[in-house]
Amino acid sequence: MIIGRVVSKVVSTRKNDALQGYKLLVVQPRYGESEDYFVAADHIGAGEGELVLVTTGDAAGHALTKKAPIDAVVVGIIDHEPEIKG
Amino acid sequence: MIIGRVVSKVVSTRKNDALQGYKLLVVQPRYGESEDYFVAADHIGAGEGELVLVTTGDAAGHALTKKAPIDAVVVGIIDHEPEIKG
Amino acid sequence: MIIGRVVSKVVSTRKNDALQGYKLLVVQPRYGESEDYFVAADHIGAGEGELVLVTTGDAAGHALTKKAPIDAVVVGIIDHEPEIKG
Amino acid sequence: MIIGRVVSKVVSTRKNDALQGYKLLVVQPRYGESEDYFVAADHIGAGEGELVLVTTGDAAGHALTKKAPIDAVVVGIIDHEPEIKG
Amino acid sequence: MIIGRVVSKVVSTRKNDALQGYKLLVVQPRYGESEDYFVAADHIGAGEGELVLVTTGDAAGHALTKKAPIDAVVVGIIDHEPEIKG
Repeated sequence: MIIGRVVSKVVSTRKNDALQGYKLLVVQPRYGESEDYFVAADHIGAGEGELVLVTTGDAAGHALTKKAPIDAVVVGIIDHEPEIKG
Repeated sequence: MIIGRVVSKVVSTRKNDALQGYKLLVVQPRYGESEDYFVAADHIGAGEGELVLVTTGDAAGHALTKKAPIDAVVVGIIDHEPEIKG
Repeated sequence: MIIGRVVSKVVSTRKNDALQGYKLLVVQPRYGESEDYFVAADHIGAGEGELVLVTTGDAAGHALTKKAPIDAVVVGIIDHEPEIKG
Repeated sequence: MIIGRVVSKVVSTRKNDALQGYKLLVVQPRYGESEDYFVAADHIGAGEGELVLVTTGDAAGHALTKKAPIDAVVVGIIDHEPEIKG
Repeated sequence: MIIGRVVSKVVSTRKNDALQGYKLLVVQPRYGESEDYFVAADHIGAGEGELVLVTTGDAAGHALTKKAPIDAVVVGIIDHEPEIKG
């Protein structure tokens, strides 16, 4: 899973029907290439500025109530930034 | 999902039968490595220059009406470029 | 599979129910881009500082007892750092 | 999907039985990291020097007649290099 | 598929039961980022120093005799390094 920050949302009027009902959040990876913004579906109510845990790939489907062409889903809101020990 | 801009299309006379009926668009990622053009199948009518939302990997199959060797599909046309807050 | 070191853990109060019962570890890749921290679920008891073997993608699901939106799982604790011959 | 050029082929005497019958082509990505050569299975007869469309990941399996441990398949031969408009 | 060289092996006493019976090889990609070592399961007897063909992702499962959390498998031993033309 990837840790990222919600930095925007996507507005799309013409879209696949199966995407209806999800917020489509633009997420900035917290680690690594910070400019590689991507889009994750959300149905747990993450807001802009929050740090979220995102599952990507086919495994994301297990967070959906029905099959949809969604390859990234917010699966958690992170309480506080992890303290890296190393 | 990835946000990208449609910059070209692919013409392929000899191709897998299951690709028939899809437009094969060349998409430029909007964020990150902007030279990493890739190809996404489209059946919602995205045109060159438009900003699109693309689902990749096995999850892309849920946007198809039958099984096909397609690993990237346009799932939405984006109304306007997201405003990044950060 | 990826070799990484456990450098932190994620605390998330609001999360997908299927993530309950797993420790969510922040893992630093041992090779390649060492700043690309990611999160892996663990149920074999890996601790901070340990070197672990992580399976990613849909294959990670085969280490879970039930379906969950988890795309990275600790599948082994590595006894000692591999000696690279080259 | 990825656009790439066929630059070599792989000869492997000891290999998984399910790979029998496929040509294993070395493909150079046309865009992005041009040194990241990878191997794609082919059964539509792509030749060295040709520009091909390759499907990767689990979706590649839909181009195969039976299940095989193949994660990249040539799904089309491209008529001419796409003209990028930007 | 990826071409890589076997440069080490992983010793893991505490590991997922489904990994028993596989050698876990450390593989160095032959092309691209040569420091991105990863681990592939092997049951065809590849040895250190050999050049191998590795299938990654969910497709790797088709080389296994039963389901296991394995995302990379050696599917062939390469006879000689491919000659790149181009």
